[in-house]
Amino acid sequence: NPASKKQQKVGLERWWVFVWEKGYQETDSVVSSVTTKAKGVAVTNTSKLGYRIWDVADYVIPAQEENSIFIMTNMIVTLNQTQSTCPEIPDKTTICHSDSNCSANSADTHSNGMIKTGKCVPFNETVKTCEVAAWCPVENDAVVPKPAFLKAAENFTLLVKNNIWYPKFNFSKRNILPNITTTYLKSCIYDARMDPFCPIFRLGKIVENAGHSFQDMAIEGGIMGIQVNWDCNLDRAASLCLPRYSFRRLDTRDLDHNVSPGYNFRFAKYFRDHTGNEQRTLIKAYGIRFDIIVFGKAGKFDIIPTMINIGSGLALLGVATVLCDVIVLYCMKKRYYYREKKYKYVEDYEQGLAGEMDQ
Amino acid sequence: NPASKKQQKVGLERWWVFVWEKGYQETDSVVSSVTTKAKGVAVTNTSKLGYRIWDVADYVIPAQEENSIFIMTNMIVTLNQTQSTCPEIPDKTTICHSDSNCSANSADTHSNGMIKTGKCVPFNETVKTCEVAAWCPVENDAVVPKPAFLKAAENFTLLVKNNIWYPKFNFSKRNILPNITTTYLKSCIYDARMDPFCPIFRLGKIVENAGHSFQDMAIEGGIMGIQVNWDCNLDRAASLCLPRYSFRRLDTRDLDHNVSPGYNFRFAKYFRDHTGNEQRTLIKAYGIRFDIIVFGKAGKFDIIPTMINIGSGLALLGVATVLCDVIVLYCMKKRYYYREKKYKYVEDYEQGLAGEMDQ
Amino acid sequence: NPASKKQQKVGLERWWVFVWEKGYQETDSVVSSVTTKAKGVAVTNTSKLGYRIWDVADYVIPAQEENSIFIMTNMIVTLNQTQSTCPEIPDKTTICHSDSNCSANSADTHSNGMIKTGKCVPFNETVKTCEVAAWCPVENDAVVPKPAFLKAAENFTLLVKNNIWYPKFNFSKRNILPNITTTYLKSCIYDARMDPFCPIFRLGKIVENAGHSFQDMAIEGGIMGIQVNWDCNLDRAASLCLPRYSFRRLDTRDLDHNVSPGYNFRFAKYFRDHTGNEQRTLIKAYGIRFDIIVFGKAGKFDIIPTMINIGSGLALLGVATVLCDVIVLYCMKKRYYYREKKYKYVEDYEQGLAGEMDQ
Repeated sequence: NPASKKQQKVGLERWWVFVWEKGYQETDSVVSSVTTKAKGVAVTNTSKLGYRIWDVADYVIPAQEENSIFIMTNMIVTLNQTQSTCPEIPDKTTICHSDSNCSANSADTHSNGMIKTGKCVPFNETVKTCEVAAWCPVENDAVVPKPAFLKAAENFTLLVKNNIWYPKFNFSKRNILPNITTTYLKSCIYDARMDPFCPIFRLGKIVENAGHSFQDMAIEGGIMGIQVNWDCNLDRAASLCLPRYSFRRLDTRDLDHNVSPGYNFRFAKYFRDHTGNEQRTLIKAYGIRFDIIVFGKAGKFDIIPTMINIGSGLALLGVATVLCDVIVLYCMKKRYYYREKKYKYVEDYEQGLAGEMDQ
Repeated sequence: NPASKKQQKVGLERWWVFVWEKGYQETDSVVSSVTTKAKGVAVTNTSKLGYRIWDVADYVIPAQEENSIFIMTNMIVTLNQTQSTCPEIPDKTTICHSDSNCSANSADTHSNGMIKTGKCVPFNETVKTCEVAAWCPVENDAVVPKPAFLKAAENFTLLVKNNIWYPKFNFSKRNILPNITTTYLKSCIYDARMDPFCPIFRLGKIVENAGHSFQDMAIEGGIMGIQVNWDCNLDRAASLCLPRYSFRRLDTRDLDHNVSPGYNFRFAKYFRDHTGNEQRTLIKAYGIRFDIIVFGKAGKFDIIPTMINIGSGLALLGVATVLCDVIVLYCMKKRYYYREKKYKYVEDYEQGLAGEMDQ
Repeated sequence: NPASKKQQKVGLERWWVFVWEKGYQETDSVVSSVTTKAKGVAVTNTSKLGYRIWDVADYVIPAQEENSIFIMTNMIVTLNQTQSTCPEIPDKTTICHSDSNCSANSADTHSNGMIKTGKCVPFNETVKTCEVAAWCPVENDAVVPKPAFLKAAENFTLLVKNNIWYPKFNFSKRNILPNITTTYLKSCIYDARMDPFCPIFRLGKIVENAGHSFQDMAIEGGIMGIQVNWDCNLDRAASLCLPRYSFRRLDTRDLDHNVSPGYNFRFAKYFRDHTGNEQRTLIKAYGIRFDIIVFGKAGKFDIIPTMINIGSGLALLGVATVLCDVIVLYCMKKRYYYREKKYKYVEDYEQGLAGEMDQ
C-alpha cells in the first residue's frame, strides 16, 4: 500500500528527528559571565607626542566592560584644547573671503561640536576660513594615520575568562578547564588545532581566523565577535562539555556599500593649566571592539519530553489506518464495493439520535 | 456527526497555525552587534562655568558602551573639591546649635560619601551645620536645574549601526541598507513615514515617538529603548528583510508611584593644583540612556518541521474516528445496540491470553 | 488490556504536562532595563595616600554601565608615573649583574607594558635589575593588600531599578512595587525573609547569601550575579507578578583549580605637572562586579496552544487502538485466529488495483 509506505517514511523522519535533535532530553539555555584582560605594550615615536610607551591603562577604553573590550589601534590626537574661538579646518564649505560668506550660529544637526560666529578669519598665511566657538584648536580628522598608530596591537593578547551555568541542571563550568595549570596559562596561545582550549588569544590571530587582515582593520577599527559555543550533552561525562571558539567580524561586510566603515569614538582627558583654566586632550580613537558572545544548549534525559515524543511518534504511525481508509473508500474505482464491506448500516440510527435529542 | 465537525475545526485551527506561524519553516534567533555615534553641540552660559561649548567628548559618558549610549542632559557641578572637612548642606537633620547636636562618625548605610566629625560649625553667617570629613565643599543637589542645562540635546543626532546574523542560515545584513549612499546618510533623519530606513535619529523625535516630552525627560533623565525588529521570511528575497524601528520609554511609567524617578549618576574629573594636591570636579549627571534592543526571528523552509507539522495535523484529523466511536459506543442511548454491531466477541480470549502467559 | 493501560498512563502524563507546564497558555520572554546606584563611604589612612574619604565617584568604575556595576574593594596605586626609563621590580627573571644578563627590546606577548632597554641598573643599594622604558616607576603588584583596602564596602548599599516588559501581552512592571513609599525606600534593606521586595541590597549580604565571605572576596575581587526572576502567570492579578531575587557567585567555583582567580583591571588618572609634562596615577583595581541578570517567562491563556494541546492529548489516546491491534494481531499466540476475525478479505483486491493502474 503506497499510502502506508509514505506514512512510514514520515514516521521514520520523526524518529530520526527524535534521536538527532535529542527529543528525549530536556534542554536549557546557557547563563554566562565574562571577564577579559588584555596584555601587551606598544611603542610610538612621533614629533607630536615624542617617544611613548602605551600600556593597558592607555589603550583599553573604558577600563572594563561587561561582555566586550575595546583595544585602541589608531588615533587622532588634538592636544591642549581650550574653550575659545578659532578658524575651522579648510574644506569646500568653510573657506571664505569675507564675513558675508559665513553664517552665524546656524543650527547644524550634523555638526561636530562647533558654533559658527559668522566671522571670516585667517587659518594660515594663505587661507581664510569661518570662525567657530569650540574647543580650540579644532580637530583635523581628514587623514587617518596609515599604517595604524598602534600597529603593534597585533601581538597583544587577550585572556577571556568565561563561567557558564545551566540553571535547570545546576551545572556550571569555566573555560579555564580543570587540567589547565598556571604554568601552561602563562605561556599558551589559542590555536584552533594545537591549543583549542587555551583561553588566551593573540589579537592578530583572532582577526586572521575570521578571514580579515589585522593591519587593515586596525586603521579604521571594527567589531570582532569571539563566539564561545557550549553545546553540551549532559547525559555524558561533564568533562566532555567543552567550549568551542570561533571568530567572526561583526561590522560591515558589504565591500560595495561601505558607507561609514569601521569603529571609532571620541573621548577627552581633562587638565588644568598652571593658571587653573581647563584644558583637554581630545582623542578620536579607532580600534577593535571584541564582543564575547556566549551561546549554547545543554540537554539531559528527562521522562516528560521522552513520553511526549514517543507518544507523538506513535500517533503519526496511527495515521496510516486513516490514510488507507481514505484512499480505499474515496479514491479507488471500486470504492462502493469496499464501503459496503466496511460499514454496517444501522437502520434506526436517525431515529435513535432524534430520540436522544428529545430527552 | 457533530463530534466530527468539532474535530474538523480543531484540524482547521491547526492548519491555520501551520501557515500563520510558518510551521513549515525552521526558525533562528538574531545575533547582533551595535555601535552608536552621537553628534551635536550645546552652548551654555552660566556664572559658575562661563560661556561654554559642549561636544560629544563632554556629554557622552562613558565614551563607548556595547549596546547603549548615555547622553548627559542636565547636571549639578561641584567645582574644586578637596579632601578636607566642611559643614554639611543645611536641612532638617544637619542644622545644629552646638556639638552635642552632631554625632560623630555614625555609620549611615544611606550616606552620600561623608563621615561626621561630631562638630557644629558655621555654614554661613546665620546657619550652623554639622561638620563632615569629605570631598569639600559638599554637593548641594536639592534643586535640579529647570529647564535642563543641556536642553539643546533635543537636536542632537544618534547614528545607530547594527549588523545582524542568523547563524543557522548564515544570513547577515546591516541596518545601513545597500541602496543608502554617503550623501543620503549625511543629510537624512529617521522619520517613521518619510525615512523609515535612515539610521540617524534626532533625540527629540525618539522621545516624542515614545509619547513623552524630551524637555521633561531631560531634567531628571531616563532610559529610552530603541527597538530594532528584524523579523524576516528568508524564503523571500533578502532585500525584503528590513529593520523596523520602534521606541519605548523603559523607566518609570507609573505616574502615581513615582518613587526615585529618572536616571542619574555621579562621576569626577581629577586634577592636581599647582602645589600637587589632588582636586576633583564632581558631576552629578542626569541624562537619557538609549538602550538599543535588537530582536527578531528568521524563518526558512525546511523539510523536518514541515514533515512534523503535516504529520501532527493529520494525526489530529485521525482523532475523529476515536471521538465518533466514543460518542456512539458510550454516550448514546442505544449504545448497547451499537456495541453489539461494532465488536466481535472472541470466545476464548481469556484462555488464549492465559495460554500465552504460561509459556 | 495491559497495552491500553500503558497508553492511558502516557495520556495522563501528557495531561499533567499540559496543566503543569501551562500548555493552555501562550508564553513570552521578558524584556528588561536595569539601572543601579551605589551608596556608601569608606575611610582609609595610609602613609602613601594619607587620610582619605572614598565616595561613589571614586570607587564605581566606569561611572555607569548597562546591566552591571563595579565596586572597587582593593587596589594597588602607583603614583606619579611618567614616560621614562627605570629598573624593573626584582624577581627571578629581572635581577642582573651586568648588561649581558638583559636582552634588549624582546617581544614578550605576556609583558605588562614595558620595553627592555638591555641595560642593568641599580634598583636599590643592594640589587640591580634590568632597565625598562615604561611609565615609571613600574607597578609592584606582587603583594595584594590584606585585608582589602576598602573593606568598608561590605556596608555599601546598591539600589537596583528594574523595569520589565512582556511585549506579547503589553504588560510592564517595575521592581519598585506600587505600594513602596519614598520613606520605606530610604530606610529598607533587602532581606529574603523580612523585606523580600526592598530593591536596596547591602553588598555584604549579597555575597553572604551566595555562600561566600565578603572580606575574602574583597581582596582579589570577583563577579556576583544578582538574579531577578519575573515568572508570571498573567491569568491571575497583575499584583501577583512579583520579582524574586537570588544571588550567585559567577566566577571561579573550582577551589582545586584556582588558576587566575578574582577580578581586577588597570586604569589611570592623567595629570599635567607644573611644567606641562604628562603624569598619571596607575590604579590596579580589584573589586566585585555585580551583574544584574533578569529572566522570566509570562504565560496567558490563549486559544491556539490550548487547541493544539487538547488535540495532541486526544491523538495520544487514539494510539491505544493501534497498539491493541498490533499486540492482538502480531504478538499473541492465537493471532491468526484474531486476524481472521478482524480483516475481511476482499477477493478481487489485486485485480481492482491493477484495473485502476491501467487507466
